[in-house]
Amino acid sequence: MQSNNLEKLRQQSPLIHNITNVVVANYVANGLLSLGCSPIMSNAIEEMDELPAICKALVINIGTLTSEQVKSMRKAGISANKNNIPVVLDPVGVGATTFRQETVKTLLSEIKFDLIRGNAGEIAHLAQAAWNAKGVDAGSGEANLSQIAIDVALKYNCIVSISGETDYISDGKKVAKIDNGTVLFPKITGSGCLLSAVCGAFLTLEGKKFELIVSACTSYAIAGQIVKENLDNNQTGQFYVELLDSLAKLDDETVQKYAKISFE
Amino acid sequence: MQSNNLEKLRQQSPLIHNITNVVVANYVANGLLSLGCSPIMSNAIEEMDELPAICKALVINIGTLTSEQVKSMRKAGISANKNNIPVVLDPVGVGATTFRQETVKTLLSEIKFDLIRGNAGEIAHLAQAAWNAKGVDAGSGEANLSQIAIDVALKYNCIVSISGETDYISDGKKVAKIDNGTVLFPKITGSGCLLSAVCGAFLTLEGKKFELIVSACTSYAIAGQIVKENLDNNQTGQFYVELLDSLAKLDDETVQKYAKISFE
Amino acid sequence: MQSNNLEKLRQQSPLIHNITNVVVANYVANGLLSLGCSPIMSNAIEEMDELPAICKALVINIGTLTSEQVKSMRKAGISANKNNIPVVLDPVGVGATTFRQETVKTLLSEIKFDLIRGNAGEIAHLAQAAWNAKGVDAGSGEANLSQIAIDVALKYNCIVSISGETDYISDGKKVAKIDNGTVLFPKITGSGCLLSAVCGAFLTLEGKKFELIVSACTSYAIAGQIVKENLDNNQTGQFYVELLDSLAKLDDETVQKYAKISFE
Repeated sequence: MQSNNLEKLRQQSPLIHNITNVVVANYVANGLLSLGCSPIMSNAIEEMDELPAICKALVINIGTLTSEQVKSMRKAGISANKNNIPVVLDPVGVGATTFRQETVKTLLSEIKFDLIRGNAGEIAHLAQAAWNAKGVDAGSGEANLSQIAIDVALKYNCIVSISGETDYISDGKKVAKIDNGTVLFPKITGSGCLLSAVCGAFLTLEGKKFELIVSACTSYAIAGQIVKENLDNNQTGQFYVELLDSLAKLDDETVQKYAKISFE
Repeated sequence: MQSNNLEKLRQQSPLIHNITNVVVANYVANGLLSLGCSPIMSNAIEEMDELPAICKALVINIGTLTSEQVKSMRKAGISANKNNIPVVLDPVGVGATTFRQETVKTLLSEIKFDLIRGNAGEIAHLAQAAWNAKGVDAGSGEANLSQIAIDVALKYNCIVSISGETDYISDGKKVAKIDNGTVLFPKITGSGCLLSAVCGAFLTLEGKKFELIVSACTSYAIAGQIVKENLDNNQTGQFYVELLDSLAKLDDETVQKYAKISFE
Repeated sequence: MQSNNLEKLRQQSPLIHNITNVVVANYVANGLLSLGCSPIMSNAIEEMDELPAICKALVINIGTLTSEQVKSMRKAGISANKNNIPVVLDPVGVGATTFRQETVKTLLSEIKFDLIRGNAGEIAHLAQAAWNAKGVDAGSGEANLSQIAIDVALKYNCIVSISGETDYISDGKKVAKIDNGTVLFPKITGSGCLLSAVCGAFLTLEGKKFELIVSACTSYAIAGQIVKENLDNNQTGQFYVELLDSLAKLDDETVQKYAKISFE
C-alpha cells in the first residue's frame, strides 16, 4: 500500500475537534501534535456549533461520559454533519454500563458517523455478538472479528475498525487485516483513543475512506512496532513517551516498508 | 515479608473502579495497567450503581472535587459496600478547604472504607492532630505518625496508611513502618494517588487487609526506589516515566529482597 | 540579567492555585513541582473563596472552559484581588469561539490581572489586530508583536507576554524580546499553559512585575533550549519528559549564561 498520507497530513495540519475523556485528553493532544495536526479539545455546549464549523474533523470518545458531555456530543455531531466534516465514534467500554449503551445508541441514531473504531469487546457489543469484554479493555472471545466488522459497517453504513494484535477494518464489503500490532499497546491507556483521533485526522485527506482508515491504522501500528523493537515488554512508560516521538518521525516510505496488510 | 501478591495480581488482573481527580486520572490508569490490572475511571452518577457491581475494588480520590462528583462518590461507595468490594479513600488535601473537610466527613459517615491512605498532612487532619499541611502536599509537623495512624484506624475501623519518606500502616493495633521511600515521590504529582489505586488492587487479593496494604505500599515504594538508583534528584520527568516501567517489571522476589519493614 | 529568582522560588516554594484545563492539569502540576513550587488544581466553586486566601498566586486558563468553571474563575479572581495575590490569565484559543471571547471579556472586566500570557494569535485577538489564529495554536500573521504587547498591556493595565520563537513582554512602555525559543515547544500540548503557571509562581517573588515575568519567560525558554540541545526535531515525547527534568535542574547561573534578552 503506497500513499503520501503522512506527508499530506503534515502539510495540511488539519484542526481536529476532540470531545474526549479526561484520562487521555493530554495524550491525544500530544499525539495529534506529533503527527503535525492541530488538536482542540472542548466539551462546552456553548462551542459545539462553532467548533465543527472551523475544524476539519470531529472525534467523539465516550471514555468518561457525563450527561452534560452527552448533550455536547449530540450538538457537535449534528453540527459536524451539517458542515460535512468527518465524524469518528470511539465507543469506549460501551458494554460496561447502561449509560454507555444508551448514549451510543442515541449518538448512532442522531449522527452519521464516518468511522466507528474500538477494541474487539466494544465492536462485538455493537454487533450483539458474544464476547467477554472487561470494563474498557478488550477482554476475550471467539467470535469472527472480520464478520463483526462487516456487520457493524453495514448496520451503521460506515467504516468500522477493530483494533488489537491484528486490526480488522471493513467498509461492509471488504475487510483489511493489519498485522503490525505490538504487545505494548494494550498496556498503556489511551492507545485506542489516540488512534481514533489519528483516524479522524486521516479522514480529512482526499481518498476513499476505507483506504484512509487502513492507512491510518497501519501507520499508527507501525509507529508502535518501531518503538517496540528497542523495548522489552515491561517498558510501558517508555513506550508511552516514545510513541509520540515515533509518530513525529514516521514517514510514508517506512509505513510502506513495514506494512503487513491482507484483504478478505 | 514473603508473598506472591504481584504474581497473583497479574494473573487475576482485577478491574478497578476509580473516581479520581483530573490531574492524575491518566497516570493512575497507566500505573494500574503497568501492574497488570484493568482500570476504569468514571464519575458519572448514571454508572455508580453498575460499576461497583462488576469491579473488584473502588478507589475514591477527592483531589479535584466537584459537587456532582461528591454525589457520585456517595452512590458508588454505597454500591461498593453492598457488593462487598473493598473501598479506598484518598483524602487529597482534606485540610485545605471546608468543602474537602465536609465531603470527607460525609463519605466517612456513609461508606465503610477498608483503607484510608494519604500523606502526613491529610491523615493528621483526620486525627485532628497538630500539623502544617500545605495545600495537597504533606507539609511538616512534629506529631507522632505511628500514633496518628493508630488513632485514625480505630476511629474509622479500617486500615490507615500514611505515605512519606517512611510509610506508616496501622490496623489500629499494629503499626508497620516501611523505609523504602525516595526523595522523588513528592516531586511528581499523583504518586500518592496511584499508590491508593495500587492499594485498592492489592485489597482484591486473598489475605489479611493489613498485610495486603503493607505489601502494596512496600512494593510501590520499592518500584520507586529501584528507579531512583539510576537517577539524580532532579530527574522528575524521567522518574515519572520509569516508575511505570518499574511497576511493570517488579516481581515478588525483588520486593522481598529490598523490603525494609519494621513493626511496632 | 542577573537574579536569584530560581533559588528564591525553591526556598519559598509558593502554593499556586490553578484553574486550568483538563488537557494540561497534570503537566502543569508536574512542572510546578519540578520548579520547587506546590501546585493545587481546583475548579470547585465551593473552594474559590478559600483557596486564593491560602495560596500565593492564582492562574486562570480557559483551555477547556465550561459554564460552571467560568463561575469559579470569576469568584476565585475576585477573591484573589481581595487577598492581594497576583493573578494570571491564559486566554487559550480566545479567538476560536464566541464563548471564549465572552468569557475573557467578562474576566477582564471583573478581575484585575497582573499578567496576560498567550501565543501571538491569542494576544493579537485581544488587541483586535489582524492575525490568522488556528484553534488553540498561534497560527500566523504579519502584525507587529511588540506593538500588540504594548497595546494590550496599556488596555488592561498589566504585563503582557506573547510566547513564541521570540517572546515579547511589555508593561505598556518597555518591550523585552527573548530569543531563547526552541522549535519543540509548539509541538507539545501545554507548553504555554505551564509557562503561565511558572509566571504566576515568579510573581510571588519580590521585584518589579515586568522583570519577574522577563525572568520567568527567560528561565522557561532556556529550560527547553537546553533539552533541545540533545534532541532532534521529532522527539516530542522525550522533550515533554525532559523539560520537567530541566526545570528541576535549572539554576540562576545557567539562565544568566544562556539568556538572549533585548529591550525596545
